[in-house]
Amino acid sequence: MYPVSRLAAVQEATAKAGLDALLLTPGPDLRYVSGYEAKPSERLTCLVVPASGEPYLMVPRLEVPGAQASPAARLGLEFAGWDETDDPYAIAAARLGRVGRVGLADRMWAMSSLRFREVLPDAEQVLAGSVLGELRMRKSPAEVAALRAAGEAIDSVHRRVPEFLRAGRTEREVGRDIAEAILASGHETVDFVIVASGPNGASPHHGVSDRVIQAGEPVVVDIGGRLPTGYCSDSTRTYSVGEPPAEFAASYEVLRRAQEAACAAVRPGVPCESIDATARDIIAEAGHGDHFIHRTGHGIGLETHEEPYIVSGNGAPMEPGFAFSVEPGIYLPGRHGARIEDILVCTDSGGERLNDTPRELVIV
Amino acid sequence: MYPVSRLAAVQEATAKAGLDALLLTPGPDLRYVSGYEAKPSERLTCLVVPASGEPYLMVPRLEVPGAQASPAARLGLEFAGWDETDDPYAIAAARLGRVGRVGLADRMWAMSSLRFREVLPDAEQVLAGSVLGELRMRKSPAEVAALRAAGEAIDSVHRRVPEFLRAGRTEREVGRDIAEAILASGHETVDFVIVASGPNGASPHHGVSDRVIQAGEPVVVDIGGRLPTGYCSDSTRTYSVGEPPAEFAASYEVLRRAQEAACAAVRPGVPCESIDATARDIIAEAGHGDHFIHRTGHGIGLETHEEPYIVSGNGAPMEPGFAFSVEPGIYLPGRHGARIEDILVCTDSGGERLNDTPRELVIV
Repeated sequence: MYPVSRLAAVQEATAKAGLDALLLTPGPDLRYVSGYEAKPSERLTCLVVPASGEPYLMVPRLEVPGAQASPAARLGLEFAGWDETDDPYAIAAARLGRVGRVGLADRMWAMSSLRFREVLPDAEQVLAGSVLGELRMRKSPAEVAALRAAGEAIDSVHRRVPEFLRAGRTEREVGRDIAEAILASGHETVDFVIVASGPNGASPHHGVSDRVIQAGEPVVVDIGGRLPTGYCSDSTRTYSVGEPPAEFAASYEVLRRAQEAACAAVRPGVPCESIDATARDIIAEAGHGDHFIHRTGHGIGLETHEEPYIVSGNGAPMEPGFAFSVEPGIYLPGRHGARIEDILVCTDSGGERLNDTPRELVIV
Repeated sequence: MYPVSRLAAVQEATAKAGLDALLLTPGPDLRYVSGYEAKPSERLTCLVVPASGEPYLMVPRLEVPGAQASPAARLGLEFAGWDETDDPYAIAAARLGRVGRVGLADRMWAMSSLRFREVLPDAEQVLAGSVLGELRMRKSPAEVAALRAAGEAIDSVHRRVPEFLRAGRTEREVGRDIAEAILASGHETVDFVIVASGPNGASPHHGVSDRVIQAGEPVVVDIGGRLPTGYCSDSTRTYSVGEPPAEFAASYEVLRRAQEAACAAVRPGVPCESIDATARDIIAEAGHGDHFIHRTGHGIGLETHEEPYIVSGNGAPMEPGFAFSVEPGIYLPGRHGARIEDILVCTDSGGERLNDTPRELVIV
């Protein structure tokens, strides 16, 4: 998952982008480059990748053994341990010397970025994503395999949802069963569990509540987690607890066609925003344009949300190796909502879906 | 937990510190000020607290219902929803107008702080912690009660550890049982589970591994999570699976005395660093100075690690309401380690421990 050659490619891209160094604190950027899964903390951990010269990992002394036990050990890096009363920012600045432009991990906390600004006052700060985004966006075959495994794991959970979903149970009760099933399916973490019944379905990022699910109600179930590889799953299906209202069934059919058409539109060269437009146009033609209140999708990999975004304004052309969600929704405030979400990877010949459970409304 | 009056106090402190506004993205700073527990995301959520004028919450349109269902709704704030194709940073900048100095949430991601720098090029960025740290460090009676409940919950887990810990099991198996017990005890999340057996005990932030625990081995168990209130637990006890080596028992007794003395030294007016020195001197006198490789403690509240740090160099005097860990350790590389950790709150008359399980070596 973390080929040793990746670090060299990152270093080359750093130089090419005119950056003097990347400063990678814990998070997906650090994990992508080194395989080291460190917890973000007030104690500085930072992989310094200079445009030229040897990369090194600044790490609190008490975490050196953990870093040595991580995949980062395979990179032959120096582990530069610092002690509790040291100032690791001053140490990093002294080692870096004069730098004009540094790339900060996209998720670097302000408590670190502002300290780096103090100790490197002449260095322009830009996002490491300006270098890493281009690399992370194009998944290698090993990364696609990891995403495929994540898709299979979350699909196995969706297949069990009909066991859990019943009128008279609360969203929270159903959500707890789903969370356990996510862990049992091989995920290392449960990242989100949305069980949005009836009117709650109209809130795309609902979560769970103590609301009791009623017969005849549609329920949006959007779930995901992270596998031990670090790669994420994310899939949404809409269920109905018994027969739904007729008007719901009609709008669901529009949604299903829109999601299908957007997936079918994926191929190299197509602008990302046109995938969004494909889904949106079908929904708008059916009179639900105002009820589709979010973008069509997001990239996925070591983060649930990353480049490329499938949204109006993103004219970047699709390339083989792009991995992203296609998840249009129709939301009727006060009534109900519906969403269908698959993860796709763009291949030479079109989009390959990494989720494979039924997209028709599942009546439980 | 989130008195409406807190926002007014924060606003006053912001003005007094000479800041024009606080910009609070998801994380403990936002939760402290508003009670809103939002997930960090590439979509900007930001509570803007101007030094004068009305605070407002910038929130992605699709998350407005979630924000309205949160405790933040009680603050009578404006929820300024933004749409997927809006630039929320530009909107925030236009509303803020000319500002000279802004405070960023300590955990704000670089992807946000650098965008705020672009749209507010004349604004000096400082940490919101420079304002909020002083408030968050002094726990209110309600916050102390929340930390006490967290202490009781994690103590109930430590009381069950002897059920789980046996020779022949792996650290990971024991850790899984502990994680389940943490959730069963009322925690909402498991934040960390360290089960460090034998030589792994010498790595303070070990985690778990597939190592099989052997008879006669000391095992460091450091565990914590977050309660639904948002407040964190954190407690370490060292166990021994059968009789430990004699030299271990001797150094453990030094550690126990050091931890006891450091706890007894807590009272208003005492510099934080002198609590560290109390523990360190006892350990050093016994010849283990080089084996105590981390600070003595950290503040705790909505974060597991926050101000005040109990470390050499922190001359700040203790005040009633300070809540923090006292957790000296002795680590012998290649052999074993030991740590004893309690959370304390400083009261008018001294330190009150919020953990109450035996500190003597527990032989299981």
